Amino acid sequence: MAGNSFGELFRLTTFGESHGKAIGMVVDGCPSGLPLDVDLIRKDLQRRRPGQSAIVSQRDEPDEVDILSGLFEGTTTGAPISMIILNRDYKISDYSHIAGKYRPSHADYTYDKKFGLRDYRGGGRSSARETVARVAAGAIAKQVLGKLGIQIQAYVSSVGHISVDKPYTELVLSEAELNPVRCPDKELAAKMEELIKKIRKQGDTIGGTITGVAFRIPVGWGEPVFDKLHADLGKAMLSINAVKGFEYGSGFDGTKLKGSEHNDIFEKSNGRIITKTNFSGGIQGGISNGMDIFFRVAFKPVSTLMRDQDSIDSEGNRVVIKGKGRHDPCVVPRAVPIVEAMAALVLTDHYLRHKATRL
Amino acid sequence: MAGNSFGELFRLTTFGESHGKAIGMVVDGCPSGLPLDVDLIRKDLQRRRPGQSAIVSQRDEPDEVDILSGLFEGTTTGAPISMIILNRDYKISDYSHIAGKYRPSHADYTYDKKFGLRDYRGGGRSSARETVARVAAGAIAKQVLGKLGIQIQAYVSSVGHISVDKPYTELVLSEAELNPVRCPDKELAAKMEELIKKIRKQGDTIGGTITGVAFRIPVGWGEPVFDKLHADLGKAMLSINAVKGFEYGSGFDGTKLKGSEHNDIFEKSNGRIITKTNFSGGIQGGISNGMDIFFRVAFKPVSTLMRDQDSIDSEGNRVVIKGKGRHDPCVVPRAVPIVEAMAALVLTDHYLRHKATRL
Amino acid sequence: MAGNSFGELFRLTTFGESHGKAIGMVVDGCPSGLPLDVDLIRKDLQRRRPGQSAIVSQRDEPDEVDILSGLFEGTTTGAPISMIILNRDYKISDYSHIAGKYRPSHADYTYDKKFGLRDYRGGGRSSARETVARVAAGAIAKQVLGKLGIQIQAYVSSVGHISVDKPYTELVLSEAELNPVRCPDKELAAKMEELIKKIRKQGDTIGGTITGVAFRIPVGWGEPVFDKLHADLGKAMLSINAVKGFEYGSGFDGTKLKGSEHNDIFEKSNGRIITKTNFSGGIQGGISNGMDIFFRVAFKPVSTLMRDQDSIDSEGNRVVIKGKGRHDPCVVPRAVPIVEAMAALVLTDHYLRHKATRL
Amino acid sequence: MAGNSFGELFRLTTFGESHGKAIGMVVDGCPSGLPLDVDLIRKDLQRRRPGQSAIVSQRDEPDEVDILSGLFEGTTTGAPISMIILNRDYKISDYSHIAGKYRPSHADYTYDKKFGLRDYRGGGRSSARETVARVAAGAIAKQVLGKLGIQIQAYVSSVGHISVDKPYTELVLSEAELNPVRCPDKELAAKMEELIKKIRKQGDTIGGTITGVAFRIPVGWGEPVFDKLHADLGKAMLSINAVKGFEYGSGFDGTKLKGSEHNDIFEKSNGRIITKTNFSGGIQGGISNGMDIFFRVAFKPVSTLMRDQDSIDSEGNRVVIKGKGRHDPCVVPRAVPIVEAMAALVLTDHYLRHKATRL
Repeated sequence: MAGNSFGELFRLTTFGESHGKAIGMVVDGCPSGLPLDVDLIRKDLQRRRPGQSAIVSQRDEPDEVDILSGLFEGTTTGAPISMIILNRDYKISDYSHIAGKYRPSHADYTYDKKFGLRDYRGGGRSSARETVARVAAGAIAKQVLGKLGIQIQAYVSSVGHISVDKPYTELVLSEAELNPVRCPDKELAAKMEELIKKIRKQGDTIGGTITGVAFRIPVGWGEPVFDKLHADLGKAMLSINAVKGFEYGSGFDGTKLKGSEHNDIFEKSNGRIITKTNFSGGIQGGISNGMDIFFRVAFKPVSTLMRDQDSIDSEGNRVVIKGKGRHDPCVVPRAVPIVEAMAALVLTDHYLRHKATRL
Repeated sequence: MAGNSFGELFRLTTFGESHGKAIGMVVDGCPSGLPLDVDLIRKDLQRRRPGQSAIVSQRDEPDEVDILSGLFEGTTTGAPISMIILNRDYKISDYSHIAGKYRPSHADYTYDKKFGLRDYRGGGRSSARETVARVAAGAIAKQVLGKLGIQIQAYVSSVGHISVDKPYTELVLSEAELNPVRCPDKELAAKMEELIKKIRKQGDTIGGTITGVAFRIPVGWGEPVFDKLHADLGKAMLSINAVKGFEYGSGFDGTKLKGSEHNDIFEKSNGRIITKTNFSGGIQGGISNGMDIFFRVAFKPVSTLMRDQDSIDSEGNRVVIKGKGRHDPCVVPRAVPIVEAMAALVLTDHYLRHKATRL
Repeated sequence: MAGNSFGELFRLTTFGESHGKAIGMVVDGCPSGLPLDVDLIRKDLQRRRPGQSAIVSQRDEPDEVDILSGLFEGTTTGAPISMIILNRDYKISDYSHIAGKYRPSHADYTYDKKFGLRDYRGGGRSSARETVARVAAGAIAKQVLGKLGIQIQAYVSSVGHISVDKPYTELVLSEAELNPVRCPDKELAAKMEELIKKIRKQGDTIGGTITGVAFRIPVGWGEPVFDKLHADLGKAMLSINAVKGFEYGSGFDGTKLKGSEHNDIFEKSNGRIITKTNFSGGIQGGISNGMDIFFRVAFKPVSTLMRDQDSIDSEGNRVVIKGKGRHDPCVVPRAVPIVEAMAALVLTDHYLRHKATRL
Repeated sequence: MAGNSFGELFRLTTFGESHGKAIGMVVDGCPSGLPLDVDLIRKDLQRRRPGQSAIVSQRDEPDEVDILSGLFEGTTTGAPISMIILNRDYKISDYSHIAGKYRPSHADYTYDKKFGLRDYRGGGRSSARETVARVAAGAIAKQVLGKLGIQIQAYVSSVGHISVDKPYTELVLSEAELNPVRCPDKELAAKMEELIKKIRKQGDTIGGTITGVAFRIPVGWGEPVFDKLHADLGKAMLSINAVKGFEYGSGFDGTKLKGSEHNDIFEKSNGRIITKTNFSGGIQGGISNGMDIFFRVAFKPVSTLMRDQDSIDSEGNRVVIKGKGRHDPCVVPRAVPIVEAMAALVLTDHYLRHKATRL
């Protein structure tokens, strides 16, 4: 209710501040009997980690996960699974310069007014550091879904004005992991990398988009009328730091089409009902129809700049602020596993919810 | 949990099928002591009603609301408020032609597979008729917000390729209600109207977008980290029939900007902290910052066409389907009050949730 | 959240005041594909209805249920089921005498202070009239459970000092329905009836207890650690008007026993694991163990007396109050179907919740 | 939803197994701005801790709490508060003797059947060790309530047949903490202690009851109709390990009274509305009326006996089981702070919920 939990039956609660002792999470509702591969959790944490390449933050967060509960001899028991990740790389002095100041387009001002005080160290609870807990939880969800043959893959589909114009069906998505930008189009990836480096040199930042795809979702997931599958996916994505928009299937472009162009015609193929096109993005009436689910997420440019910006302090005085430390010039490469994690959480939750639909 | 409720503290539950006895709703959690103006509810229902103009569905739904509970001498008591709207205009024979068939891009197939059966009359529970309950509930929420001086206004910002390019700040929003398209730019409205009429003659349909604005929201509404104000707004909008996308503030366009262009610089003006620009769309870190909240919602073209379409029936046989009855060629004019209603529900809920933040 | 809903996956929301237009309910989460026998709903409403015998309230409430949604050709569709029951027998003038007065041990004072106003007509929302909605919903839940072979039966186990000392296993529970007190021990039932008549003549009221039993519950229902099956049963019962206590299995008497007397020894019988005794009341560690679930619920004497009582009005002045109209001298006979209904709601909810436990 | 969370606005989630790495908790929804006194948390943990006296378990659990999040410079920030308590005293070998066996009246059998496997070490998640997290959370809730002047005090009111017959109003409750039984009647406390020692020598255990009282609760807390204050208190208490019953105010004894004896007559005293008697236990219509709230909780005898008991193993073979290690012969002395903690959680939650009642 205070906003730190997500999901109904597969429910994640996260806790911890950027510069507190630890970031942690509890997953309640993970089915019992799942042998949990901790390496898969580590692998996704590693994908999210700063310092992986020259175009992301150079912070050194080892992000070692400690599983405190919920497993017995490596298998889930149905009890809540909790993990913590200690914050080893915090240097309090890095943040004293912003203690009383409101960084532009950050949550400093709103948190201060909402709560009457704030943990200013690295943004405290509002920091994207919190997403490490999401990625850890998502790696559990992916394993639940994996048992059902489901796979989720996200990739960077634009950085600034450089955009992948091909649909995901014409890309080899696994190639996204072969370059630091996480764009499956090698040539565009190189251009994006170049752009990010240029922007970083200017002490500036740049936005971008991520496309996510879920393969082999069974027909029937999603709940009418408020908990439509895409509504929950949308909320999940919009809850990620820096996200400004969400669209699925034909999205905003679909608004320009006529019904006769946009409708997905059903046909039977090899005994299975499919649609000839997929403007629906795999979801009709809020419920999965068995086609690929795909969506796109908009990320704004990172707010912390490595150059002077005007602002005010908590007393309304004009001040100048400049970022210190190690920040991302562009958030999308590291946000790819976060998008996947949130999608996995939504889908696992709706998998469990769907079980209650029939006698 | 089965998806028919929305909100936490100000909680709407809707029920009823397109061609059942009634559409109804319960609002639980409306604060006591609010003198409820039923005319304001009727007025919003009237705005959503079919048959208002030549460009919308010509169905005759009088949509008279019957308040069953929650008021005493016209004032809310804190008890659940329920209303029902009888479905008077249903003609069961209108729908026998689709009983066993799956209409393209409708929820027929997915409901059938999810639930093992479906009420095929007019889409049953998946019909946009359900939104009448949302509008009624939204009209209560608007009155709660009205007590706080808050106003919500939505308008059609595009139909097909015809788009309002000016920001909302350069429009007189109240003028949207002066034309049947509900676009505040008179000239564009005329073009949109013409386009819709042309499309309708073709037996076709067209998509569009709606922009929503909330004025005078206090600083501090919204909950970190999953229940960010824009995440809940996004879910609310995405739960509306035919919605394919949501963006707020700078949205998808913001992804192309640099941080130095996008950051909203704070300043003190007349003793109040404001930002010079509002790319943030009034929300920072998921919490309202006192600036206008604005967002844009994408609606696909209506799926029911007045011309032949290929499809299949529930046994996989190929069939031809053609819409009968009275349908909208473009949904956005009538969806304006629905967008406002959903925004009002989210904001009222977060108003109440915010009360629990401090001792 | 405002307290008018119950259950997680099988979720009941009730609305309506004692003397408003209608009492109503929505059940969200009823599985699809259940042919609903409306006569079974009517039958339970009839059991709860006033005016059935000389020892209960003589109000004439026909309690005809109108199903507004959720069925298609008599079968549940997975959409929310709503029903309303019109309030036909209300005479507003009956209640003007208590408009500004606080009836002793009623909710008049607390509602007034909590909400700042109250619907004084017959107690408004605090009236036991609300339980008609629970009974209607419970009759749906019983049908879900019936599909699984589960049966729930409650009976009056005491009125005042007259108490059934035999355990339920030595009674023929179906005989409870053969007398107006709903006590399966014929001789004690006659004494209870006599007592209630005597008490009524005095213009007084008397308390009592109801015992509930659920037969053939599968092993495994209930959720650790907060949503133990008996904890949810307890909350369900304590939410019924006039209830003061709940115990299950050995209950309060069990506190006097030694572990060696109280432990239920497992054994295998006909290939099935059972316990020799059932002090556990069919629940161990909060989870059903396959034995009968039984519990006891304490009801206080009805607060409305047909004789003068001292009280105060809303301004603190001393006043005298005397009940008017038709009230129950003892609530337990009519509360039997309410206890059954609440038990059915809890069990159906946990049946659905249990489905999410395993992959 | 999987049962490991409690409360709506002040929401506790616990995690951890008896013999896992740690027991932990997250409190989401604690208002910001509360200077948290960690010593008060330690003090309540100390009261719950084993090994405090000769009549409780002699396990050595230091129970040092580590606060991971939610505080900034000692004050709550509105972010989730998490704490962990490492399990230092686990000896895996202690439990191998029960690995495949079902201890009578424990959760071994039901967990095994529900989840398909179980952590048999010390009961795993079903162990009362989990309550350490509740006590830590309750100590936070007590501090929130303390700001409002509210105090909660529980005490042992019976052990076996030895029962405190005086009402709490005739006792000095603070004296409960002066003896190891936690009974405020010194002479009865001595007898209880003697009884427990005798029972322990027999390798047996004994049940008991705890009475809880909350002082200075404002009028108006509690939500109609399902979330009555006593219904939530009842669920809270029934969720504690070994609890078999709950009653408040007049409770089960009240069922024997007549309305004319049981009704609490209002009067104005020193400008404040009070009732002459308090059979209502401070709650009318589910809402606090400003009088003391009091209730009684029944605990069964501990199931683990230090002597041979017949049972079966997971294959249905007959086996003999005998407790090892250090167990409580009677749980009530150590359960006193647990009862207080659960009461504090319920009251704090309803305090926050009540804030949403009015505009």
